[in-house]
Amino acid sequence: MHFIEWYPRGYGVAFKIKEKLFETQSSYQRIEIYETEGFGKLLVLEGTVQLVEQGEESYHEPLVHPVMLAHPNPRKVLIIGGGDGGTLREVLKHKTVEKAIMVEIDEMVVEISKIYLGIDRGAFDDPRAEVVIGDGVEYIKRAEEKFDVIIIDSTDPVGPAKQLFSEEFYRHAYEVLNSEGILITQSGSVYLFTNELLDAYSAMKSVFDRVYYFSFPVIGYASPWSFLVGIKGSIDFEKIDMNRAKELELVYYDPERHETLFQMPKYVKELLEGKLKL
Amino acid sequence: MHFIEWYPRGYGVAFKIKEKLFETQSSYQRIEIYETEGFGKLLVLEGTVQLVEQGEESYHEPLVHPVMLAHPNPRKVLIIGGGDGGTLREVLKHKTVEKAIMVEIDEMVVEISKIYLGIDRGAFDDPRAEVVIGDGVEYIKRAEEKFDVIIIDSTDPVGPAKQLFSEEFYRHAYEVLNSEGILITQSGSVYLFTNELLDAYSAMKSVFDRVYYFSFPVIGYASPWSFLVGIKGSIDFEKIDMNRAKELELVYYDPERHETLFQMPKYVKELLEGKLKL
Repeated sequence: MHFIEWYPRGYGVAFKIKEKLFETQSSYQRIEIYETEGFGKLLVLEGTVQLVEQGEESYHEPLVHPVMLAHPNPRKVLIIGGGDGGTLREVLKHKTVEKAIMVEIDEMVVEISKIYLGIDRGAFDDPRAEVVIGDGVEYIKRAEEKFDVIIIDSTDPVGPAKQLFSEEFYRHAYEVLNSEGILITQSGSVYLFTNELLDAYSAMKSVFDRVYYFSFPVIGYASPWSFLVGIKGSIDFEKIDMNRAKELELVYYDPERHETLFQMPKYVKELLEGKLKL
Repeated sequence: MHFIEWYPRGYGVAFKIKEKLFETQSSYQRIEIYETEGFGKLLVLEGTVQLVEQGEESYHEPLVHPVMLAHPNPRKVLIIGGGDGGTLREVLKHKTVEKAIMVEIDEMVVEISKIYLGIDRGAFDDPRAEVVIGDGVEYIKRAEEKFDVIIIDSTDPVGPAKQLFSEEFYRHAYEVLNSEGILITQSGSVYLFTNELLDAYSAMKSVFDRVYYFSFPVIGYASPWSFLVGIKGSIDFEKIDMNRAKELELVYYDPERHETLFQMPKYVKELLEGKLKL
């Protein structure tokens, strides 16, 4: 028995499965949990792999730490999505953080993750953490607080999360950042969601003072995976705080080789920089 | 209909297939050619994907150009394996090359590739090219010529190509290099052949004057893919000749971001450098 996630162009990522542990239809999506043969549990939303238990840090570390270490003093962090708690867990590893608000639309994802995955490793109980069940798009429109870092930990840019990749959304996010602020979003498979990556990059470029792109090999996703970083103010994403980096125990993201994050196939770099057209 | 290649730990890479175009058993291995839905043709040896027609440059470019550009004047090149002709094609793009010998054990792979793939794009007819049908291990033991660059374009380090990853083989290869020489080998999936990568790295370290490792996202392989580079003499693989780089038309490997080749998950880097044990 195996599970396959099909990407565009007939490309699939497959896992051998021991058993299906759980399946339900929440108000928002179909949620499945599988026990794989070699990677622990699999969290699947609407047929797409969200999380591979053994290797999930290969997603959460590059999503969280590069921006946290590029910001000079990240005290208030907003997470949109991330219902499994992995992103919140990584954010709270930073001692500078005073408050981390996670806005997840689907309460069921949070509850099922607590029962079957437990990858928050206590983060949901951290006094600095606050979980809001609600729509991230609406939350950011109405937010009265400001944040140093915003992390968009959503599903892919081709489904219900599409709004989270729009220029309008980024404008609201920009407003909600402090004068020195940084936003990161996952932006899909470099090779297989190239159009969505270009669209999101272009939307971010029209809003932020500076935009960076990078890639990382995420286990269980159609690698390499892309990430987009938007800057408000003067933060230099190519420089990180190595003193704070040394305090973190990391497995995948390597602060000593921060510059290697910027690996990108030449033609994709040229598409992003407008030197090549599709 | 689809084709799946299963890697260790029950991880698979899948392609939707239009039809199987060809299948045979050569003296060495089972050879299959498929027409995929989204990536052109697939060359499969012993059930493992060797080549994805649309995207094959994502393998051949990082295999060939970084070492060719790090060597100050690569005139004679030896390719072990590479029966489809893609590596030979990329080598011959370098104007410094006077002679490129390709030693492929399985003549059938060369002939089938010519018929169904044609990715050599004329390289087999280049007067600088010489194709030898024979065992690369034996060839390198008995070679009387010396080479500037040796490229090992073999199947994975877990099958019949195992010898090509042994210390004995690297000793013979070292002898066959000129006093300033460089060797590269593909060394499997970073995440899924980690042990084989460590073994090959260790074997190379005991032979070469200096060894480098890097990774690249190869389309259709369980990415990221690892590559090992062995140096005889004083070549600095972190520096490449940007003047020669500019003469090449490249799609995947980006000489302007050569340093990003060295992306490697932190724990794999630490394993390679002996700072972490399995």
